[in-house]
Amino acid sequence: MSAIPKTCKAAVLPEYGAPLEIREVAIPALEDRAILVKVEMAGICGSDLHIWHGKMGIKAPTPYIMGHEVIGRIVALGHGRVKDAADQPLREGDRIMWAHADCYECYDCEILRKPMMCSHRVGYGMAPPEKLMGGFAEYEYVIPRTKVVKLPDELTEEEAIGVACAFRSVVAGFEKLGGIDIASNVVVQGAGPVGLYSALLAREMGAGRVVVIGAPAGRLELAKRWGADDVIDIDAARDPAERREIVRSLTGGRGPDLVVECSGYPPAFAEGVDMLAKGGRYLVLGQTSPSEVTFNPASILQRNLQIIGSGGAIISHFYKGLEFIRSRRGKYPFADIVSKKYALEDVNDALRDMQAGTEIKPAIDNRNRPSPL
Amino acid sequence: MSAIPKTCKAAVLPEYGAPLEIREVAIPALEDRAILVKVEMAGICGSDLHIWHGKMGIKAPTPYIMGHEVIGRIVALGHGRVKDAADQPLREGDRIMWAHADCYECYDCEILRKPMMCSHRVGYGMAPPEKLMGGFAEYEYVIPRTKVVKLPDELTEEEAIGVACAFRSVVAGFEKLGGIDIASNVVVQGAGPVGLYSALLAREMGAGRVVVIGAPAGRLELAKRWGADDVIDIDAARDPAERREIVRSLTGGRGPDLVVECSGYPPAFAEGVDMLAKGGRYLVLGQTSPSEVTFNPASILQRNLQIIGSGGAIISHFYKGLEFIRSRRGKYPFADIVSKKYALEDVNDALRDMQAGTEIKPAIDNRNRPSPL
Amino acid sequence: MSAIPKTCKAAVLPEYGAPLEIREVAIPALEDRAILVKVEMAGICGSDLHIWHGKMGIKAPTPYIMGHEVIGRIVALGHGRVKDAADQPLREGDRIMWAHADCYECYDCEILRKPMMCSHRVGYGMAPPEKLMGGFAEYEYVIPRTKVVKLPDELTEEEAIGVACAFRSVVAGFEKLGGIDIASNVVVQGAGPVGLYSALLAREMGAGRVVVIGAPAGRLELAKRWGADDVIDIDAARDPAERREIVRSLTGGRGPDLVVECSGYPPAFAEGVDMLAKGGRYLVLGQTSPSEVTFNPASILQRNLQIIGSGGAIISHFYKGLEFIRSRRGKYPFADIVSKKYALEDVNDALRDMQAGTEIKPAIDNRNRPSPL
Amino acid sequence: MSAIPKTCKAAVLPEYGAPLEIREVAIPALEDRAILVKVEMAGICGSDLHIWHGKMGIKAPTPYIMGHEVIGRIVALGHGRVKDAADQPLREGDRIMWAHADCYECYDCEILRKPMMCSHRVGYGMAPPEKLMGGFAEYEYVIPRTKVVKLPDELTEEEAIGVACAFRSVVAGFEKLGGIDIASNVVVQGAGPVGLYSALLAREMGAGRVVVIGAPAGRLELAKRWGADDVIDIDAARDPAERREIVRSLTGGRGPDLVVECSGYPPAFAEGVDMLAKGGRYLVLGQTSPSEVTFNPASILQRNLQIIGSGGAIISHFYKGLEFIRSRRGKYPFADIVSKKYALEDVNDALRDMQAGTEIKPAIDNRNRPSPL
Repeated sequence: MSAIPKTCKAAVLPEYGAPLEIREVAIPALEDRAILVKVEMAGICGSDLHIWHGKMGIKAPTPYIMGHEVIGRIVALGHGRVKDAADQPLREGDRIMWAHADCYECYDCEILRKPMMCSHRVGYGMAPPEKLMGGFAEYEYVIPRTKVVKLPDELTEEEAIGVACAFRSVVAGFEKLGGIDIASNVVVQGAGPVGLYSALLAREMGAGRVVVIGAPAGRLELAKRWGADDVIDIDAARDPAERREIVRSLTGGRGPDLVVECSGYPPAFAEGVDMLAKGGRYLVLGQTSPSEVTFNPASILQRNLQIIGSGGAIISHFYKGLEFIRSRRGKYPFADIVSKKYALEDVNDALRDMQAGTEIKPAIDNRNRPSPL
Repeated sequence: MSAIPKTCKAAVLPEYGAPLEIREVAIPALEDRAILVKVEMAGICGSDLHIWHGKMGIKAPTPYIMGHEVIGRIVALGHGRVKDAADQPLREGDRIMWAHADCYECYDCEILRKPMMCSHRVGYGMAPPEKLMGGFAEYEYVIPRTKVVKLPDELTEEEAIGVACAFRSVVAGFEKLGGIDIASNVVVQGAGPVGLYSALLAREMGAGRVVVIGAPAGRLELAKRWGADDVIDIDAARDPAERREIVRSLTGGRGPDLVVECSGYPPAFAEGVDMLAKGGRYLVLGQTSPSEVTFNPASILQRNLQIIGSGGAIISHFYKGLEFIRSRRGKYPFADIVSKKYALEDVNDALRDMQAGTEIKPAIDNRNRPSPL
Repeated sequence: MSAIPKTCKAAVLPEYGAPLEIREVAIPALEDRAILVKVEMAGICGSDLHIWHGKMGIKAPTPYIMGHEVIGRIVALGHGRVKDAADQPLREGDRIMWAHADCYECYDCEILRKPMMCSHRVGYGMAPPEKLMGGFAEYEYVIPRTKVVKLPDELTEEEAIGVACAFRSVVAGFEKLGGIDIASNVVVQGAGPVGLYSALLAREMGAGRVVVIGAPAGRLELAKRWGADDVIDIDAARDPAERREIVRSLTGGRGPDLVVECSGYPPAFAEGVDMLAKGGRYLVLGQTSPSEVTFNPASILQRNLQIIGSGGAIISHFYKGLEFIRSRRGKYPFADIVSKKYALEDVNDALRDMQAGTEIKPAIDNRNRPSPL
Repeated sequence: MSAIPKTCKAAVLPEYGAPLEIREVAIPALEDRAILVKVEMAGICGSDLHIWHGKMGIKAPTPYIMGHEVIGRIVALGHGRVKDAADQPLREGDRIMWAHADCYECYDCEILRKPMMCSHRVGYGMAPPEKLMGGFAEYEYVIPRTKVVKLPDELTEEEAIGVACAFRSVVAGFEKLGGIDIASNVVVQGAGPVGLYSALLAREMGAGRVVVIGAPAGRLELAKRWGADDVIDIDAARDPAERREIVRSLTGGRGPDLVVECSGYPPAFAEGVDMLAKGGRYLVLGQTSPSEVTFNPASILQRNLQIIGSGGAIISHFYKGLEFIRSRRGKYPFADIVSKKYALEDVNDALRDMQAGTEIKPAIDNRNRPSPL
């Protein structure tokens, strides 16, 4: 076993809204089946901004170490942890990703068989510093019951990091759809990572035309390289009615058969449902705000619509997401999702750039960082 | 071929909101593949009240013959019409039901394969008197392209009439669900015919507990005889929060896995979505009003909900509905849905009783009426 | 905690084909999360005959304690085991059922999300005597990772025992079907417990006509009381062609929309596929023999058939099966599946009666047995 | 309206097994809703060889005009035929494809809603010469009730012709699958047009690895250009056990999650089912021979397999197939499926080359043929 330092640096959120502080924190003792990893890369997620400012539904008590989108390299494996969830052997030095830790013992996990809805889920990126369960740090501690999956050797961290949050959610959402009718028209609302991966997956699952609505131009440009046929810039087409008209003309006058909501913007809900073709489906992947919208439920009946919500993902979705990217390497510029890399000490800059919308996905990059030992 | 009178009596809506008038109207000449029927029974549908007062989305020009829920006895078969949609031979004297006439030539019918959404659908109960395409009459004319199905001999008109509108919609809606998870808990919002048939079908498709929310007491009492385990009287439990609490306690604290909206009352939408268990499904069968509601779309994602709208039905649903009732004769008091019968001349009384809510389903009964010949 | 005896009696299979022997065996020390139960009732399963004679695919080394279909009453709960898989609290004195112990760590469990196919599954009824993991005994030991579910208080052991093997398999199989089209015609091949529960479930999930093919008369009579409309006695209709004709005439000349194979008899496969209506589905629940059959695969394409195999079940299916029976108590004579009860010492008689086909389900009944203490 | 000749040339099958004869046949008078087309291209289908030699299940009486895979250019539109099934206006000079003519009036069409199983289906390529309902001719007559779809302007005949038979069958088959799990491994048995389109569609619907088993080398080479990751040449790997080993090693030791049978070779059935991973699905697209195979049905239960047959297609599948190809133009060399073109007079050479297996899809090309007028 490698030498394990006693402490490491971590970016701690001291209280909601304040800048993160680099602190020296203790590394926990390794329990059976737990894993200690060196953080190689930690992505900044759109939701990290809400977390930072205490605007998520669930508010963990501060201080804590943020960061829930991580690639870690195994430093130490607890007794009994010998393989990943796909039966691949685990060894020190392997790179892994991991899901929230679900209990696999409750009604949600065992009777409904939906661990993504587990009432006893333990998440990463919201635990007290002494637990070391956050990605904005040099090391991270993966608790015993966490499911993990090994990264394919050929993938770079930049290619894979998006699987750790945005893409695994998209994989879980599209799985609920149970396939896309071939040649169906798809609109994606939002051009952040969730929107970009949705456009990609729609393209690769047989869609006809794929249209992305969002901003700014840099994200839309990447959407096109990731398979979108058309993009609608909301900075140019600012009126929902105008956007609906463009969509209508791009979809043979009928509207899209599937709209994937990835914007997180509450009014997008009514706009998206409204543009659907008869018999269309609406997949909700971005709505997390407590805001209410006004909405006419009769349209659901009259146009025979379906609205499908998908929140959360489990290790199966990580695995499939990684395999998907591995099998399409070279076909799409997957690494371009990471638009800028930062040292751990610059995590506040990364958060501010994310807030300013100038980056698609900023990431903390520890790969060339000297060991704290 | 039987002797066919030149004219017959029909209840004509002279203008929106006015009482229907009994008029003598001409019987059209029989085209190839058309069918002339003697109306045996015509149900009064909840939507007939909206139609009467011009409050439906689609307002046909008056005057016209109302009535879209009909059992007819074949008087004359146009050339080439020899069997029904289930390959059963048709003969004079057979009793039939029929669906709207869809085109089977358009994108909706042929590419989407959803004739219930046909853009060229021709409906009954909204055509000018000379077409004789309404059920509140002595005779009715079934146009050539209409799909029809023969009634099983053993069913009485009272047992079968509900298939002609409410039940075939329920059959179509539950078909979209693709089955109910066995032992799942189901709440039905609304105790009109659509709600009653939904409770029945949930019971017979494997549900655990079936709860009906509605009023008045007479309908709730029939709901129990049709398979509901529990009823919640909205005249007693007037507050949505109170109803939600009752539902929660009846469903093990988790809420229902399926809510079937059959109320047509817009605020029922948010109430129903709100009470769903995690992973639950909401089937919209009643919403037709243009009213908007306020609603939090984040709940769809956070609780992994699905909302499924179903409007319209085709002859397949009529057939399955009739077969279903035939196979469960004696098990449920199907005939009790027809709470009162009226002569054609008393159609305005029937409409007023429906409006007063004193009847579940009033019906025009022509069975013992002397022939107009 | 109750006093726990050091040893108890168990019926041990000394070698394949030999009579079981009642031996005194040690009761294992209780690990964390394990459960020790007093066996209240243990059913004799059709597969116990194959096991007894060493004719199952998997042959565990003898000696071992047979019995995999058990209701146990909790004597001691290992540390950390406080509730069942449906979040119901567990206490000494509660009655439980349990599934095979799957690993929830492998590709089958976590990536495919099908623990019923777990490669690391540990089964009951095939372990060395010192593990006390078999039901033909006074006590049984439930190992830590086993999922368990509490029995509803209102159910008797006779009503519930069938859930422990036959019915949970039927629930799992019908779940794969994802619902039955209402008013569809269903044929069940086989009138053993799997066939009887299949007829019941088809009836309660919306089927039109339900036909059971099997023998002997006593089972067919129970099939009718459990919801079958018609039965075909294979002792009377001995020729497959004759049976096919009867089925055809009972299903409007078209054949059944669904055939559920519950016979375990290899030639039933071709007979069942052959009788299906166009577009029909064939659910394989009984085939476990290594025998080959001859079969024309073109019929699958030409008649657009689907063949669906389902083997294994998980705790979710136990829970749903128990809830299903609880919610339909009084509607069907569920207890009649247990046709005869035996003392543990008479287990060889029970096996012989099963082999002779004179009983539907014999069961070891320990309920009035004095404590070994 | 263009001038319509009285007669045209057609290749008539005089009796089973004999060479086709070029004859002058009458052009029928145009009925309402019928269409007369000039045949632009007619593909030779693998099944044409069976038809030629009278080895199909259905043997129409000779003589007749073969050819069921056709692109026609509209010469005359019968009264009332103004648009195609996708609501696109039809005009003289437009190119169209058409499906078999189903009745849309029977139990199969209307109650099951599966017109591909219509008992009253009228097919092309098997009618007496005077009906002019075969593609190996200068003109073809499309009867009134036939559903048609217009070709997108940008597609060449070479790119589109495969939709008329092989691809629309593949589209229909994959529709029954309801989507492919992303990153799942797919094996295609057979490298004829059905196999090639299946590999393409699996690739474009999200598959992980796509493996094609077949021969000869030219087809396998095209399979790779159409998206297959690996090919297994059955001329090199002649032993099923050897092929199974290769497949196993290409699929992580687990076997494929989906096998698509496109070979038409009866023993491929057992070979394909045998190689499936646990929980895998087998789609039967090629089996039409009456030969029986030996097969162990227990494997279906023990490995939780599904076998899905799909025969026939309707106009919806033509439309989606054409849209799919249109939206992926430039991405794949679609035109390469037509490996050689022949004059109508050389139709027997085309059939012989197909029989020799030297061509993937030979086609009769009438595009530069002078008008018979």
